[in-house]
Amino acid sequence: MAESVNFSLLQATDSEIRDLIRACQSVKKEAYCVYSEFRVGAALLTEHDRHIITGCNVENASYGLTVCAERSAICSAVSRGYRKFPVIAVTSDVATRFCTPCGACRQFIAEFSPSGQVLLVKPGYQEEEYMTGTGIQIISVANLLPLGFTPNDLILAKSTL
Amino acid sequence: MAESVNFSLLQATDSEIRDLIRACQSVKKEAYCVYSEFRVGAALLTEHDRHIITGCNVENASYGLTVCAERSAICSAVSRGYRKFPVIAVTSDVATRFCTPCGACRQFIAEFSPSGQVLLVKPGYQEEEYMTGTGIQIISVANLLPLGFTPNDLILAKSTL
Amino acid sequence: MAESVNFSLLQATDSEIRDLIRACQSVKKEAYCVYSEFRVGAALLTEHDRHIITGCNVENASYGLTVCAERSAICSAVSRGYRKFPVIAVTSDVATRFCTPCGACRQFIAEFSPSGQVLLVKPGYQEEEYMTGTGIQIISVANLLPLGFTPNDLILAKSTL
Amino acid sequence: MAESVNFSLLQATDSEIRDLIRACQSVKKEAYCVYSEFRVGAALLTEHDRHIITGCNVENASYGLTVCAERSAICSAVSRGYRKFPVIAVTSDVATRFCTPCGACRQFIAEFSPSGQVLLVKPGYQEEEYMTGTGIQIISVANLLPLGFTPNDLILAKSTL
Ligand SMILES: [Zn+2]
Ligand SMILES: [Zn+2]
Ligand SMILES: [Zn+2]
Ligand SMILES: [Zn+2]
Repeated sequence: MAESVNFSLLQATDSEIRDLIRACQSVKKEAYCVYSEFRVGAALLTEHDRHIITGCNVENASYGLTVCAERSAICSAVSRGYRKFPVIAVTSDVATRFCTPCGACRQFIAEFSPSGQVLLVKPGYQEEEYMTGTGIQIISVANLLPLGFTPNDLILAKSTL
Repeated sequence: MAESVNFSLLQATDSEIRDLIRACQSVKKEAYCVYSEFRVGAALLTEHDRHIITGCNVENASYGLTVCAERSAICSAVSRGYRKFPVIAVTSDVATRFCTPCGACRQFIAEFSPSGQVLLVKPGYQEEEYMTGTGIQIISVANLLPLGFTPNDLILAKSTL
Repeated sequence: MAESVNFSLLQATDSEIRDLIRACQSVKKEAYCVYSEFRVGAALLTEHDRHIITGCNVENASYGLTVCAERSAICSAVSRGYRKFPVIAVTSDVATRFCTPCGACRQFIAEFSPSGQVLLVKPGYQEEEYMTGTGIQIISVANLLPLGFTPNDLILAKSTL
Repeated sequence: MAESVNFSLLQATDSEIRDLIRACQSVKKEAYCVYSEFRVGAALLTEHDRHIITGCNVENASYGLTVCAERSAICSAVSRGYRKFPVIAVTSDVATRFCTPCGACRQFIAEFSPSGQVLLVKPGYQEEEYMTGTGIQIISVANLLPLGFTPNDLILAKSTL
């Protein structure tokens, strides 16, 4: 992974990070994943009032309607009036590597937080590991979706028609 | 519309219905709909503890990632551990007819509440109209998704392979 | 199922129906369904030049990006310039009941063919059964998506803002 | 953009590239984009028999059901039995910058072609520009979806449950 954990760059305080980690691990238990059996939990931080809002994956018999945990959390936050999320934490049951958001979620996150950060949390992560950082990883949204397709592209297209 | 409003069939009390109506109208204001300018608000009732959970539509520059209000509300509820929703109320800015959930939302609702009900609420609906019922309409999920594709279909297919 | 097979109502000739049945059964073999193992094939008829265009389901590790067979076939047809499809045939591996399109596909079909028909084909269907009709079923798009959310709703909403 | 056009790295011949460019420009005209008015065309090359298969974007009144051009082309190809696509070309109406695939499409492309390449084509691209390369750009799928979420993640998760 290109970025090592550099806590000084994190757009959240130590205390917020700890809360985000606990929150994403906790909401993972609610995952509705009867088809994939792949549980995912996400927790985001709201920009101004520093609230934490969570979401799990919600699957569907018609697979294509499945909503990932990251998008689930963002929908919940947007419905409460939030629009900016400096950090979103994600955890799954994959223990042997850091499991990143899918491309759809990267695009969904970038709609609101193109300069935000994603905090990847391994399932076995324990609080005592926090300072060592072996169980967590930080990566910017910009690095997860380089050369991103943006809302601006829609405007640029219309201006040429 | 096939069904007239028959309050005796509603799977919610008068008071719950009034709360659902207010909740879906309120959350509509949070709609993130910069592409369609089509605001939608949804509010569902949880089965046992009778909580109301809301959601608005959340659009995306890549249109296909857009999440409707109904799915937004359900994701929020599932993330809090809920799985059954006897009634989900929906309102938009369409005043001249009752605007129904799209097919994707019907399938998403049916995953959790195949025997639930959808309460359609017109934008100008005022509380005093409640007893006359001209601004609201009730329709069952079963009637919105007849002969539904169900989780059971996936099992039936596997048993024959 | 509400409708019995009434061949006189079919918006296709006997010969076209036979071709649609064979085509949806054939394309089912191409299904990319490594996650669900649920194979589906779809074949549609184009309105004016009576071509048959097929599609199978295409799944994705991020379940939510999965495209059903019906939508796959329609995308293929639209990409070739077609916009109207009087009949779309669908078959899966579910033998014991007629497997219908999911809600998302109903909405996708209705965008182009609100007055079209869906032909459900059981997997074991053999040509000799054709006249008895026990292995096939016809249902209108309008009956699969009653009180449909339509493109017109978007226009009605804008007119009131 | 990080990569300059290095033709020697392209996983297609000069002649194939020219055909891909023409094909994506041509299919863009079929785009069904009545909501966004954002036309996109995609053309992919199949691995062994070097066929070109095209797709345009197909929108829907329920925005979330919209299928991008890239996914449309891939569904069409998969339905014909293809599974590997060394190069996929994409063009839109954005003239002032290279318009990249959205995150959802990156994930969809990576399912089949994690080591493939995306060829970005500006709308005004003329064949005489070919050797100068100012109107086209090449980028690898790996660079568009770094640290990608992969089918393997699903397997790793199951092994730990
Ligand atoms: Zn995702
Ligand atoms: Zn919807
Ligand atoms: Zn479907
Ligand atoms: Zn896309």
